[in-house]
Amino acid sequence: MSPPPYAIGIDLGGTYLRAALVERGKGFLEQVQVETEAEKGPDHILDRAADLARRMMRAVPGDEVAGLGMGAPGAINWERTTLSHPPNLSGWTKVNVREALRERLGQPDLSVTLENDANVAALGSAFYSVGQPYDSFLMVTLGTGVGGAIIYRDRIFRGTTGGAGEFGHLSIDHEGPVARSGVAGAIEAYLGQRFLSRHARYRLLARETVLHERAGDDLEDLTPKMLFEAAEDGDEAAREIWTWAGHKLGCALGSAINLLDIRTVIVGGGVAAAGDYLLDPTREAMQRTVIAGLREELHLEREPLGNDVALLGAAQLTFQPDPGDVAGPGETAPTERAPAAS
Amino acid sequence: MSPPPYAIGIDLGGTYLRAALVERGKGFLEQVQVETEAEKGPDHILDRAADLARRMMRAVPGDEVAGLGMGAPGAINWERTTLSHPPNLSGWTKVNVREALRERLGQPDLSVTLENDANVAALGSAFYSVGQPYDSFLMVTLGTGVGGAIIYRDRIFRGTTGGAGEFGHLSIDHEGPVARSGVAGAIEAYLGQRFLSRHARYRLLARETVLHERAGDDLEDLTPKMLFEAAEDGDEAAREIWTWAGHKLGCALGSAINLLDIRTVIVGGGVAAAGDYLLDPTREAMQRTVIAGLREELHLEREPLGNDVALLGAAQLTFQPDPGDVAGPGETAPTERAPAAS
Repeated sequence: MSPPPYAIGIDLGGTYLRAALVERGKGFLEQVQVETEAEKGPDHILDRAADLARRMMRAVPGDEVAGLGMGAPGAINWERTTLSHPPNLSGWTKVNVREALRERLGQPDLSVTLENDANVAALGSAFYSVGQPYDSFLMVTLGTGVGGAIIYRDRIFRGTTGGAGEFGHLSIDHEGPVARSGVAGAIEAYLGQRFLSRHARYRLLARETVLHERAGDDLEDLTPKMLFEAAEDGDEAAREIWTWAGHKLGCALGSAINLLDIRTVIVGGGVAAAGDYLLDPTREAMQRTVIAGLREELHLEREPLGNDVALLGAAQLTFQPDPGDVAGPGETAPTERAPAAS
Repeated sequence: MSPPPYAIGIDLGGTYLRAALVERGKGFLEQVQVETEAEKGPDHILDRAADLARRMMRAVPGDEVAGLGMGAPGAINWERTTLSHPPNLSGWTKVNVREALRERLGQPDLSVTLENDANVAALGSAFYSVGQPYDSFLMVTLGTGVGGAIIYRDRIFRGTTGGAGEFGHLSIDHEGPVARSGVAGAIEAYLGQRFLSRHARYRLLARETVLHERAGDDLEDLTPKMLFEAAEDGDEAAREIWTWAGHKLGCALGSAINLLDIRTVIVGGGVAAAGDYLLDPTREAMQRTVIAGLREELHLEREPLGNDVALLGAAQLTFQPDPGDVAGPGETAPTERAPAAS
């Protein structure tokens, strides 16, 4: 008997809670989005998530749903069952989401897998988007912060405790500006949204740029979006900021590639909207800082699907046995499968 | 029937060629070392390697030898059969070592596995030395250059083409001094033997130190060994150099740990003889540059077995199915085993 072809993906964010029904290897059948209403606490959020899951499940026969995967911010335990201290979700300390959803859905044996949001986005890209041609890549998410994930041989590389892939904390200058994490010269201290805006502001204050009209004379309101729009409008000063930022990013990527021998990088997140203004100089610096022996077949791609890859990747968790569950050398974990739903 | 309990390990270096008979999970039964005589070319070296292997095999019944593993410098192909352009081995372009040794030994089905020398050293430490308690660690080799390897869940993490683990090319300053590899601020540009000596020289020229008596007035002959001996003799200026070097090393390790969530580091190589003069400040900087979420259970150890781990790791290659041979998700490579020797 072939395995059930569908899975539920849930993307738990601070603002929106999204769910989808995904067909293995194909993509979305249904999608739905509601507000998270994070201020009402974990029980409320889990009720809403279970509601969405139930709606998604209704679209196909119960025995064709392999399980449910969820991407979430915050610390997830090695067994991928429990979410602790998610940022932006008030009153949420530590919850076993697997048990909470099984109970609410009345399916005590349902396959439920939790994973870090950056990791599920990368998995989604690997199986349903621009990551498909590559069995290994580094995903970098440029948003409020700089996140990341490592896909190695079509799996999430989780490290010792599930915390691997935090590219934002890689340093390019051990005596450089200090990021929120406390790491000097971390790439997040250059490309994180606030850091980027601040660097840009100081670099542009004395320059001629259309941004003085758009972001206030002292550029106090400058955002990456404004920098992108100004670059699009032909503003040289704005373009130079992206060149500066891309150079930093490329240097950080070069270091990571030298260490990992993983030569494809996929860039997502809001700031990646800057496109080639950012990515051309990134590519150039990356090419130059990667050692000669690894310089062939370097790829830098932009993830075009936005948040959808997180939903697809969350569902994909269900379809993939987890290398993290491998008990020892030579052993492969069984894939957890949902029984026929009642 | 249990698998054969012994394997041959060969360590091919520019100066010495070493071989050992290793008992699985236990260690050396026999060891032998000859000069490589690299100047006589690949055929000569392979003849000598086959001779040593034959001598090692004689110690136990042929059907108890599982196979032969070899560690070597230079580029090794993904299938781990062929060694290309090893540095210090003149006239060696590209040789299928597996076939060459099978032919010389008259055993066309013998399991023969080649691997990068840094990777086999790490594997040896993982199974026979200070790495045993840890299922994942980063090995750093401080010698002429700075080498490295990643052990993840008791396997060598090989990356896309077998080139992963090159910790020496991780940069701590994207505008720093340029290493031989061309990478600005690569940690090798601080701790590689010549770089370290040069940095030390310029930092010590105007200082009071016993090294002026030992390394010439202009410190032209300064070596890491002299720096270690001076530190042992209580020379403050020499100790400060190790503190400086350890700080740089710790910053680089912090970046790697943040990316990998692999929290144990094992340091080997000649320069590691500096011991705690180097490793105490390394530990301190590492602790400070690792993000809070990964700061527990950080370990920094020194590899005490020296080159022996390379021999043990080379033999260990035979005992381990290679994750690099895994054809796709969910599939595990069969272990290649030698048939009974004739």
